[in-house]
Amino acid sequence: MTTIYYNSWLKQHKDLFGAIEQNGQMKFSIFIQSNEIEDVYFVIHKENSGQKSDYIKMESDAAGNYQCSYVFDQGKGLYFYYFVGHKKKDSFFYGATKELGGEGQLYESEYSVVPYQITCFSQADHAPKWYREAVFYQIFPDRFHNGNAHNLIDHPKKNSFIYGRHTDEPMYIKDETGNIVRWDFQGGNFKGIIEKIPYLKELGVTAIYLNPIFESVSNHRYDTANYLAIDGMLGDETEFRALVDLLHENDMHVILDGVFNHVGKNSMYFNYDGSYGEKTGAYRDPESPYYPWFTFTDYPKTYESWWGFDDLPEINKKNRLFQAFIYGESDSVLAKWNRFGIDGWRLDVADELPDFFIEGIRQNLNQYSDKILLGEVWEDASNKIAYDERRQYILGDSLHGVMNYPFRTTILALLRGEMTPEKATKNITTLEENYPTDIFYNNLNNLGTHDTERLLTMMDGNKTKALSAFSLLTVLPGIPCVYYGDEAGLTGGKDPENRKYFPWDNKDQTMEKGFRHWINVRKKTEVLKYGAFIPFYTEELLGILRYDSSNYALYVLNPNNCAKKINVADFSFTKSCPLTDEKIETILDELEIAAYDCCFISGKL
Amino acid sequence: MTTIYYNSWLKQHKDLFGAIEQNGQMKFSIFIQSNEIEDVYFVIHKENSGQKSDYIKMESDAAGNYQCSYVFDQGKGLYFYYFVGHKKKDSFFYGATKELGGEGQLYESEYSVVPYQITCFSQADHAPKWYREAVFYQIFPDRFHNGNAHNLIDHPKKNSFIYGRHTDEPMYIKDETGNIVRWDFQGGNFKGIIEKIPYLKELGVTAIYLNPIFESVSNHRYDTANYLAIDGMLGDETEFRALVDLLHENDMHVILDGVFNHVGKNSMYFNYDGSYGEKTGAYRDPESPYYPWFTFTDYPKTYESWWGFDDLPEINKKNRLFQAFIYGESDSVLAKWNRFGIDGWRLDVADELPDFFIEGIRQNLNQYSDKILLGEVWEDASNKIAYDERRQYILGDSLHGVMNYPFRTTILALLRGEMTPEKATKNITTLEENYPTDIFYNNLNNLGTHDTERLLTMMDGNKTKALSAFSLLTVLPGIPCVYYGDEAGLTGGKDPENRKYFPWDNKDQTMEKGFRHWINVRKKTEVLKYGAFIPFYTEELLGILRYDSSNYALYVLNPNNCAKKINVADFSFTKSCPLTDEKIETILDELEIAAYDCCFISGKL
Repeated sequence: MTTIYYNSWLKQHKDLFGAIEQNGQMKFSIFIQSNEIEDVYFVIHKENSGQKSDYIKMESDAAGNYQCSYVFDQGKGLYFYYFVGHKKKDSFFYGATKELGGEGQLYESEYSVVPYQITCFSQADHAPKWYREAVFYQIFPDRFHNGNAHNLIDHPKKNSFIYGRHTDEPMYIKDETGNIVRWDFQGGNFKGIIEKIPYLKELGVTAIYLNPIFESVSNHRYDTANYLAIDGMLGDETEFRALVDLLHENDMHVILDGVFNHVGKNSMYFNYDGSYGEKTGAYRDPESPYYPWFTFTDYPKTYESWWGFDDLPEINKKNRLFQAFIYGESDSVLAKWNRFGIDGWRLDVADELPDFFIEGIRQNLNQYSDKILLGEVWEDASNKIAYDERRQYILGDSLHGVMNYPFRTTILALLRGEMTPEKATKNITTLEENYPTDIFYNNLNNLGTHDTERLLTMMDGNKTKALSAFSLLTVLPGIPCVYYGDEAGLTGGKDPENRKYFPWDNKDQTMEKGFRHWINVRKKTEVLKYGAFIPFYTEELLGILRYDSSNYALYVLNPNNCAKKINVADFSFTKSCPLTDEKIETILDELEIAAYDCCFISGKL
Repeated sequence: MTTIYYNSWLKQHKDLFGAIEQNGQMKFSIFIQSNEIEDVYFVIHKENSGQKSDYIKMESDAAGNYQCSYVFDQGKGLYFYYFVGHKKKDSFFYGATKELGGEGQLYESEYSVVPYQITCFSQADHAPKWYREAVFYQIFPDRFHNGNAHNLIDHPKKNSFIYGRHTDEPMYIKDETGNIVRWDFQGGNFKGIIEKIPYLKELGVTAIYLNPIFESVSNHRYDTANYLAIDGMLGDETEFRALVDLLHENDMHVILDGVFNHVGKNSMYFNYDGSYGEKTGAYRDPESPYYPWFTFTDYPKTYESWWGFDDLPEINKKNRLFQAFIYGESDSVLAKWNRFGIDGWRLDVADELPDFFIEGIRQNLNQYSDKILLGEVWEDASNKIAYDERRQYILGDSLHGVMNYPFRTTILALLRGEMTPEKATKNITTLEENYPTDIFYNNLNNLGTHDTERLLTMMDGNKTKALSAFSLLTVLPGIPCVYYGDEAGLTGGKDPENRKYFPWDNKDQTMEKGFRHWINVRKKTEVLKYGAFIPFYTEELLGILRYDSSNYALYVLNPNNCAKKINVADFSFTKSCPLTDEKIETILDELEIAAYDCCFISGKL
């Protein structure tokens, strides 16, 4: 009989844990207890290297540990590995369990083996301190607060609608074929955000992510009409500058939404409807300076557009004039708004932006010491394939981090009873393993955005569940981000329901108090921002251990609909735990956690 | 050879012209030149009398005029007549040309003969002097003017939309099945009307017809939610009283829109959506005092509604409690609003209101000396059949008059080149013949309302045509009514396009000047309000003669796209003209009228 064991999350098997900087070295050790083994190979392949796989013979010690080292000298990218063992009569193959790291499994043939991933990055990408210590708050500007007297709307758009009441349910106004024919506004604006800075400060958030603010036709403003102008309904440049300055004076930061993959059909660049003049814009003038930005297949009627939505003509990012327009050193979109003192950018549909384009943006931002660059990616960004290409955005010189939707999926599924604590723990650890450490700690974690159902709705209105979800977000690595209004008990399914106006007159006190509590816990507990991270689980509970050389924080969540008592003996750690069982028992044993509730204890090691 | 001639519009054939008061007497005379005639019968039948037709033998004079008298002693209603002549070998039958009075035609059989109509009314129904001399202005309140500072909206409705700009194109907000899901508002209100009284006065109008103003969900307010409350978006009772008082102080009158056939589904009476309480209203409480107002076929889901629109549950007008609620002497809807000093009512969908119900309303109004009662009827109201019943609303004790849509149809068709002057003249004279004189002079004439395309749009944007249409309206009997904004050059097809916001900042000066001119002509020319009326025509021109014992007004319209010269010798009058040809020639002959233009000359006889 043969016993084979390998676990990529344990130091005795893989040292270092997780991703690696290029030219770094790692040790691998697989345990095999068998009399029949002749030799064991570590097989590794750098994706897109043009090279064959390396077969490295592993050395065994007396205890049955087959070991080897590997230097990641083929540059940044993804490396995939597995193990092959030759016995006298046959061979075995050991690789990863599909979509997960950690323990692997045996495969019968080399063709079917699922390799482990190792992400190799060019260099560690520390984010600025303000960012790493931030608690973010996402504001969808039209729906946050109108700061004008009497709720007056500045510069309402032609053929648009204003909601009769702030409590009205959002809706799309469509024609019989489903096209949006009028845009609906609540009239939130910069003055409104300024007015609510004290509220945000009291809530504890330290940074704002603003959905788009540039001139456009829609309420979401992802259909940019003019990259160099503030949308008149939101305010003007003076007010924007005042907003940025006031945020900074209040020790808060702000990042903008950069929508550079496409523009609005009725933008000044495309000018389909002639809003910007009879004979200007690519659609109306093939001599337009913007004509080369677009790809017309049958001018002017047919052109490439985002996901085929012809309201959003897509830009050819290879166009050098467009590149210079967006991220050129001076006179560019980035240059203009960076000069306003904003603290970074979130790139919309980063998947659609070529790596060189994102790198160009990052280079622009590298002029400054403290600007952050995030990307919208919905999946594990380490191995995302978009348009048949493996994306490079977390391998260095590109994004600082991404919007961490996989965390959201896992947290919500766990609390909805759709995922076991074990699976949730393993999902989270797999992400940690695949991401370079800095990326993992830089990700902007969320439980909902303008693109998803709201937290409380996903939690079926159960406030305890919703607050526990948020508590888990605050104890995980990465930057927690609150979607405006979640803390006030706003509900809503997918867009447009998730874009209700902030209920200033009807805030849910339980939710607000809970959010404030966990934001405070996060901010005052250093180890939650910088500490190492080990998830653990029992059949019923999920736990998180954060620690550094002198501090720890222990968190346990009960995702069940009845109270559970902690039995530390049941704990399974995904990684080697530096705390003794006794220590943990002292802290946690016999604690009872109410249904959907959690406990959090921090202290000195 | 036989010559037969009869023309119901000529005094020598039918004396009196037109309709007759009950128990009145008329003389009929048909001219027959023939050697073969044995005897001629005047055949007359009172509709729904249960009696057979009267066959009255006519006496002939030497010139071949067969004559008889008839006393209309079978009560009010419609009498139909024709002539039968017996010759030695055969018979002939003479009746009306289909849908027209005036000259008739021979028929081969008594079964096919189309009889002439004589309308017999209970008594002449003089309208109050203020009404007979009025020039009306119809205001759709949401779209006229918002008198609040900063265009603020008072009490915007739940889940409603406000247009971003006053210049926005009106639209319905519907779901995929075509149901209206949100109502759209511009926010016009009483304060706005008050603010514009000087404008209206300068325009020359002397009375306002207000579309509904009671509490309701929609922007048109035909879905009454509470008959005893002013809609909060429009103002309150204090403001309404101020509006009525100010109009009166400015020598203007005002009538309201009474919508008594149905209510809104979400009214306090039906309360489908529970807006008025969990357990109130007919839909939610079979013990509700309003339950008997409605006809449920399967409670509560299925109920009778206006034209099957289940948003508008229909009321059983036979219900005595509802009758008392609407027109009871005190504590009724009419009592309440009459006390505000309003000057009358326009009954929505009068076709749907039983005669007894309209008569009940009229009795209520008869308490006052000067309140007017009008009805919405789209066709010739004298012979309208609704729900298999011949309606009685213009036969006395009921409506003072109706909204004269047939005039609109004729005037617009004439100017659009779709109807000859001859046909137009005959249509108008037929209406005059069918209506009791007072009704004809009491009708509220329009060229467009909230239910039709706008005048300028029907005139293809041609302002000369539009102004000529209005000029014709002002020289016809009946009260001219301007649909708000027509005088400012508003355009628009059917609802909702015809409900744009009044273009206060962009009034068409030509249109406004033209409307002001013709309103002034109407007001200063007494004979246009009270004078007798004779239309005339040539192949190319349409004319109107108004006259009394000492004055005349002559009007000629050229509906052609090129100038035309008047040749009085070509004139055909529908009725005997009291002016000599020489007199008319002196006034009109050789006058040239530009394309689509008209001329108007008044003087002493």
